[in-house]
Amino acid sequence: MSKVAVFGAGSWGTAFSVVLADGGNDVTLWARREEVAAAINETGENGDYLPGIELPPAITATHDVEKAAHDADVVVFATPSQTFRANLTDWAPYLSNDAVLVSLMKGVELGTLNRMSEVIAQETGAGPDRVAVISGPNLAKEIARREPAASVVACADEDVAKMLQDRVHSPAFRPYTSVDVLGCELGGAYKNVVGLAVGMAVGLGFGDNTTASVITRGLAETARLATKLGANPLTLMGLAGLGDLVATCSSPLSRNRTFGEKLGQGLTTDEIVASTRQVAEGAKSCASLRELAERTGVDAPVAQYVDDVVNGRLTANDMMGEILRRETKAENA
Amino acid sequence: MSKVAVFGAGSWGTAFSVVLADGGNDVTLWARREEVAAAINETGENGDYLPGIELPPAITATHDVEKAAHDADVVVFATPSQTFRANLTDWAPYLSNDAVLVSLMKGVELGTLNRMSEVIAQETGAGPDRVAVISGPNLAKEIARREPAASVVACADEDVAKMLQDRVHSPAFRPYTSVDVLGCELGGAYKNVVGLAVGMAVGLGFGDNTTASVITRGLAETARLATKLGANPLTLMGLAGLGDLVATCSSPLSRNRTFGEKLGQGLTTDEIVASTRQVAEGAKSCASLRELAERTGVDAPVAQYVDDVVNGRLTANDMMGEILRRETKAENA
Repeated sequence: MSKVAVFGAGSWGTAFSVVLADGGNDVTLWARREEVAAAINETGENGDYLPGIELPPAITATHDVEKAAHDADVVVFATPSQTFRANLTDWAPYLSNDAVLVSLMKGVELGTLNRMSEVIAQETGAGPDRVAVISGPNLAKEIARREPAASVVACADEDVAKMLQDRVHSPAFRPYTSVDVLGCELGGAYKNVVGLAVGMAVGLGFGDNTTASVITRGLAETARLATKLGANPLTLMGLAGLGDLVATCSSPLSRNRTFGEKLGQGLTTDEIVASTRQVAEGAKSCASLRELAERTGVDAPVAQYVDDVVNGRLTANDMMGEILRRETKAENA
Repeated sequence: MSKVAVFGAGSWGTAFSVVLADGGNDVTLWARREEVAAAINETGENGDYLPGIELPPAITATHDVEKAAHDADVVVFATPSQTFRANLTDWAPYLSNDAVLVSLMKGVELGTLNRMSEVIAQETGAGPDRVAVISGPNLAKEIARREPAASVVACADEDVAKMLQDRVHSPAFRPYTSVDVLGCELGGAYKNVVGLAVGMAVGLGFGDNTTASVITRGLAETARLATKLGANPLTLMGLAGLGDLVATCSSPLSRNRTFGEKLGQGLTTDEIVASTRQVAEGAKSCASLRELAERTGVDAPVAQYVDDVVNGRLTANDMMGEILRRETKAENA
């Protein structure tokens, strides 16, 4: 049986391990905390992140990087984006030189403005034919419950994408191939930021007309930036763009939407972090995406205003006013 | 003050009358049933369709066609699509020869496969510079409550679109102009059909990953057909495409989504109509859109399967299986 290493035993890393096991792979799931790995092996469940989901026997957890990476021809990363580079430098010496390296992460690194596939290439020296991303409307809890879902497996080398497609295909999980790594990654990162904006609208008490307008504007902004950087516009219309965005914005399970709701209710980022002990991915990536748009010369009001609200320079209420006011008169002008 | 006639005192015709009144127009709202017109004038409320919403004094209701149409330089239609042509032949003699005729309807006529703007042109002889549509993420109850919303005002003649934009603009309602009447109408008609499919998924117990995938596929299908017929693809990415679709699919207020949910739970169309005494617009338009796609040579599985389920040739459960199975291997192949 082929072996896959999954680095990151949060809810998405764990749920994706279930997909991989259902797809016929032997999975070693690396957990940052030793006690999490031990608990998974003892109980057959990740009680911290996916309580109630029985993990298939093909999944073994470990805290040992060398053991996790050993013999894995596919290595999957599912850690927070902003600490990924530091983690990867620790892991890189243990990764096989011909393993395919797959990002499940949806963020853009602060400062460098690198996407996660770029971080992988830089820190491991892997060429584009060994770096892939998987992204789509994939809420972890629904995936773990094996509700039917589709996703995009993107790699610059189509044959590698097809190999991965085959490895992650299971009755409940349908992967489609793509060669547009950039489009998938920007779609994934941007949807967290738009999810924050939609959450703010919900927190302020607005209804479905308003949130639908924010989603529409947010996707247009994503497509504007991504295509300027070289993505295929169809990617943004697809599962890793529109699909992922709609799933995030519809779901009360979404951390970014929930974080935005609290901002909409008037809490500050510090207050939210203090009470939930986590920062939503979009609350970091909004600054990166804003800067990326500025450098690229693309108008990006959603990223800009979300960044202002997250960092206390604007209230959510003023943001919604600005977004509604600044429209041009012809829709596609 | 300029006068607008609104034909159709259902929830959307009534809510749009509020928009028009807020925009500074004198509104005459024509109701099919005399007692509805009388009740609106007596109580200042449309208790049947928009209970609890106080109508502005600029709105007067009537059952008299001649009185409704008299002096109106803008005439708005908000009736069921399938009976519209028959109604319009009655009304046409009373309409001013230079009035701008606006469709708020979202359907495609069975048999002829005409869009509502085409029915207007045929039955009144109005040229493209006098026929317009208004479409967007505009759930009637939210509009009536004056929650912020945006919409598209489309007319082949951009100056007419701008005139209408000015007439319907109010603090809570932001209209954007477009010249893509076809794109707006197909976006509006198709979203009802996709709303049915999403409702079926919800009724079958699927979660947000699945519904997001159905929305993504549905919009791709809409864009495929609409652009083949000459629409601007950006229209489908905009408020009258994606925006309207997302609002409909997110909202428990949506009749089409609710109708789909009941189909998903295993009820037949006849059973649903018997208990709710109404047919969702998409349950009629699915057959028209299916046929339009067939004639145009466009692959339209969502319209096809929804039509099959609505007409009892397929169960909702089998439909979801078919939709999930028939995917191609590359997302944009």
